[in-house]
Amino acid sequence: MACRSKLTPVLRRVATPSLKKSVAAAHPAVYATRCISSTAPRQLQASGTRGAKFTTDSYPEIKRDERFAQLTKEHVDYFKSLLGNDSAIVDGVTGEMAKDDLQPFNLDWMRKYQGHCKLVLKPGSTEEVSKILKYCNDNKLAVVPQGGNTGLVGGSVPVFDEIVVSTSRMKQIRFFDEVSGILVADAGVVLEVADQFLAEKGYIFPLDLGAKGSCQIGGNVSTNAGGLRLLRYGSLHGTVLGIEAVLPDGTILNDLSKLRKDNTGYDLKQLFIGAEGTIGMITAISIHCPQRSKAVNVAFLGVESYEKMQQAFREAKTQLGEILSAFELMDSQSLGLYYKAKDAESALEGEHPFYCLIETSGSNSDHDSEKLEAFLEDIMSKEIVADGVVAQDETQLRSLWNSREGISEASGHWGGVYKYDVSIPLKDMYQLVEDVRKRMEDAGLKGETDDYPVVDVVGYGHMGDSNLHLNVAVRRYDKKVEEALEPYVYEWINSKNGSISAEHGLGLAKKKYIGYSRNETTVGLMKQIKNLYDPNGIMNPYKYI
Amino acid sequence: MACRSKLTPVLRRVATPSLKKSVAAAHPAVYATRCISSTAPRQLQASGTRGAKFTTDSYPEIKRDERFAQLTKEHVDYFKSLLGNDSAIVDGVTGEMAKDDLQPFNLDWMRKYQGHCKLVLKPGSTEEVSKILKYCNDNKLAVVPQGGNTGLVGGSVPVFDEIVVSTSRMKQIRFFDEVSGILVADAGVVLEVADQFLAEKGYIFPLDLGAKGSCQIGGNVSTNAGGLRLLRYGSLHGTVLGIEAVLPDGTILNDLSKLRKDNTGYDLKQLFIGAEGTIGMITAISIHCPQRSKAVNVAFLGVESYEKMQQAFREAKTQLGEILSAFELMDSQSLGLYYKAKDAESALEGEHPFYCLIETSGSNSDHDSEKLEAFLEDIMSKEIVADGVVAQDETQLRSLWNSREGISEASGHWGGVYKYDVSIPLKDMYQLVEDVRKRMEDAGLKGETDDYPVVDVVGYGHMGDSNLHLNVAVRRYDKKVEEALEPYVYEWINSKNGSISAEHGLGLAKKKYIGYSRNETTVGLMKQIKNLYDPNGIMNPYKYI
Repeated sequence: MACRSKLTPVLRRVATPSLKKSVAAAHPAVYATRCISSTAPRQLQASGTRGAKFTTDSYPEIKRDERFAQLTKEHVDYFKSLLGNDSAIVDGVTGEMAKDDLQPFNLDWMRKYQGHCKLVLKPGSTEEVSKILKYCNDNKLAVVPQGGNTGLVGGSVPVFDEIVVSTSRMKQIRFFDEVSGILVADAGVVLEVADQFLAEKGYIFPLDLGAKGSCQIGGNVSTNAGGLRLLRYGSLHGTVLGIEAVLPDGTILNDLSKLRKDNTGYDLKQLFIGAEGTIGMITAISIHCPQRSKAVNVAFLGVESYEKMQQAFREAKTQLGEILSAFELMDSQSLGLYYKAKDAESALEGEHPFYCLIETSGSNSDHDSEKLEAFLEDIMSKEIVADGVVAQDETQLRSLWNSREGISEASGHWGGVYKYDVSIPLKDMYQLVEDVRKRMEDAGLKGETDDYPVVDVVGYGHMGDSNLHLNVAVRRYDKKVEEALEPYVYEWINSKNGSISAEHGLGLAKKKYIGYSRNETTVGLMKQIKNLYDPNGIMNPYKYI
Repeated sequence: MACRSKLTPVLRRVATPSLKKSVAAAHPAVYATRCISSTAPRQLQASGTRGAKFTTDSYPEIKRDERFAQLTKEHVDYFKSLLGNDSAIVDGVTGEMAKDDLQPFNLDWMRKYQGHCKLVLKPGSTEEVSKILKYCNDNKLAVVPQGGNTGLVGGSVPVFDEIVVSTSRMKQIRFFDEVSGILVADAGVVLEVADQFLAEKGYIFPLDLGAKGSCQIGGNVSTNAGGLRLLRYGSLHGTVLGIEAVLPDGTILNDLSKLRKDNTGYDLKQLFIGAEGTIGMITAISIHCPQRSKAVNVAFLGVESYEKMQQAFREAKTQLGEILSAFELMDSQSLGLYYKAKDAESALEGEHPFYCLIETSGSNSDHDSEKLEAFLEDIMSKEIVADGVVAQDETQLRSLWNSREGISEASGHWGGVYKYDVSIPLKDMYQLVEDVRKRMEDAGLKGETDDYPVVDVVGYGHMGDSNLHLNVAVRRYDKKVEEALEPYVYEWINSKNGSISAEHGLGLAKKKYIGYSRNETTVGLMKQIKNLYDPNGIMNPYKYI
């Protein structure tokens, strides 16, 4: 049968030693842990902080709000009397504190946003957070709540002299129920620490990010982080069962429910999920954690068109059903950038316009392999997919994931990259990449030589969530490229009822563009909420609201 | 091996014709559709409306809010000019409308709450809803939004002369994407209609209720309905992607996102999920629907203690993992009531203190059966479970489900029943039943003869969600029983940080008791939201907020 002959390469290739070798050689097993997000782990390098621009220089139109007081010795004395411990305060107001000590709190990991903060407070308890915020509110001192400072939109660093209130000293796991899988933990618990704690109990944190080694769960909830497990476990709006948060006036909202079902009035905690610290500061969360899967499989497939990619996704949902845990899209251009930047080679022999990475996670390894193989056989026989491989061991699995995850970093290899993280209804999703690519070509901005600023326009992302990462890789940042991109990209997204931020949030970066995703009525209602909770506007000012 | 001998009955019994016969005979296959909720389908019988008490008589302490205007001919004329169509208005103000026509909107299905409404409006579009609410707000006319009127807490019927605004004429399915599974539909679409529409496409509505034949999806979202699929698909806070709602001043909040990920500011729609129509009226929803499972299996097990029940649940989560779709608890007393009321017999031979019903739903029938059998073998060998059967066909499957679902109705068989729908952390959950049972015995209220009002105190529910239904079956309603139950039950729940409403909402029934589940700060913040959105208080007044 014709279909059988098509099928053979998939199953054979994964078994051949040559493939094992090629995949493993391309990506030596130096990756200690698998990271399943599109974003690379973020660590601020001390040596990398020089030369970073201040946000006030990049955005000269943003003026300091004169309602806010200037920090004085009296303010600092109050905080010292409150927090006692010297290590709980980084004082650049009265002390001789070197700028280097303040820098990690002032500068974001991309070195794109930098504030002028002179005081960092690290409370050790919710009560201390309450006293800090009340004092700040009474004295009109602006505040930026900060977790691991791994955000991508400049939301977690100050612009002017706002006080940074860091959750880094609040890192207790308060409660875990081994029967229900409900975890209650301080905001400052690092995501990876929480996940490792859960792994020992046979559970998994329902969120995973490249930054998991440094981001904190309070920040994750504050920014409504997406990541890769969303396809399987849903958003934080569904998994977070409760929060403890401090309002600007010091009120402690204790809504740390340990219940999966609680239907008693307005679900206020939801307002704090994704508020990016603009109405209060999350100090602890309660979250429902699923059982950890025993079996994980990964397949990597070449696909001839975006139409077929959608068919493959539909079939994967139908046939893999409850074990499908990731369906990632990459165009050949995006993987091309990765292979060039890393001098790596493809896991597949031929070239294809599109690739997808499919992951399954289930409770029975044999069943899952059988389902995956039957699925592959079916989509090969229907000619939905042209070629494919399945990882045979953990090293191959990591290598396949690395080729997906490495695109983000590789996109910047030639000098710079304009990044957009968007949601678009699935049928139209990839069209954005094609339209932007054509726009760059038509404008004479994209080419093979140094005369052209644009190297390539590529698309990849979480197809399972309709979440596209559009990257415009450039040799240099160029005003002409920017003008060709914006507001064009936002207008395009708006015309498809998409979202200008699928998972990164708005922060400062998308302050100007919220109108492309949210209508005037909705933005007006958001402002009502902001004014209700934070009438003095001290919480994370100058950001999207 | 000892474990093998224990195991045999499970696997053999399900295969023996005798079991098939006994299960099938006990519950003849008259049930056309399987209903997987604890609540029976609700249909208001016209003949049953006589003699129902008015809420104003049951709750004499509730006084009509004098801020609200009395309905006049001018008001009615406006609505007639707006809605045109005669069938869109039930007019008991100016017309000779028989009370019977108003009754279905005034009385809840339990015949427990009855209002004095004289005007029912059935808008056909969101714009009409907007004009109605704006007019009502401007003229201080109170409003009760109503869907299928299948609620259990008196939230969907008026108390005095509030105008009922019914969504019954808004029943268009507006959009469905066969790749992403995202559905957008009017609020008035009946849940079963939506689910049948989805079934044809290979999808499933992520919510299922006994009332699905009459309840409407707008009402489901407004009341944050729970039901049985929650264990598998999560709550509406996670699955609802967007809503369209009309605020009291006529503002249309159009937030009908068709995106799984949209991280652009406060998630305002969440406030409307579970608000029970107190801040606005939902006119349409957007929801993410999962693929429909091809294979469904049901096992029914006898368990010797609540400790072992928790072990069984933990093992089910671990071993069945992604295919576990229900884990239902029944104590022997609750099933006993069912068997007595229905003159039915148990699917198991011996008696056990507890029973559980486990359902799996997956994409591969063989795999699922294999997993389920391995799981049963394991828990039998570990002596976690004493005995069990597995349904061999659809009839047996329905019969087993009917014995679980029939308890709710059977509890009222002897004259009446006091019902509590609560969430309690799993380890303490069943203790409530034991404590209440003892309390009734100690008070001399429970016994075998007619001298005692209480027949039995029973517990059952959605163990997978920590959601217990505590039913006190009585021969007659008795003030002494009520006094022994309340506030005792609510205090008990409060002491365990439980919820006084897991899935039914608060409505009028739990107006007085919200303080047992929500602290003063939270209730205060809820009132802020109520005042922000509905400063004139016209939306569903006299209810929990």
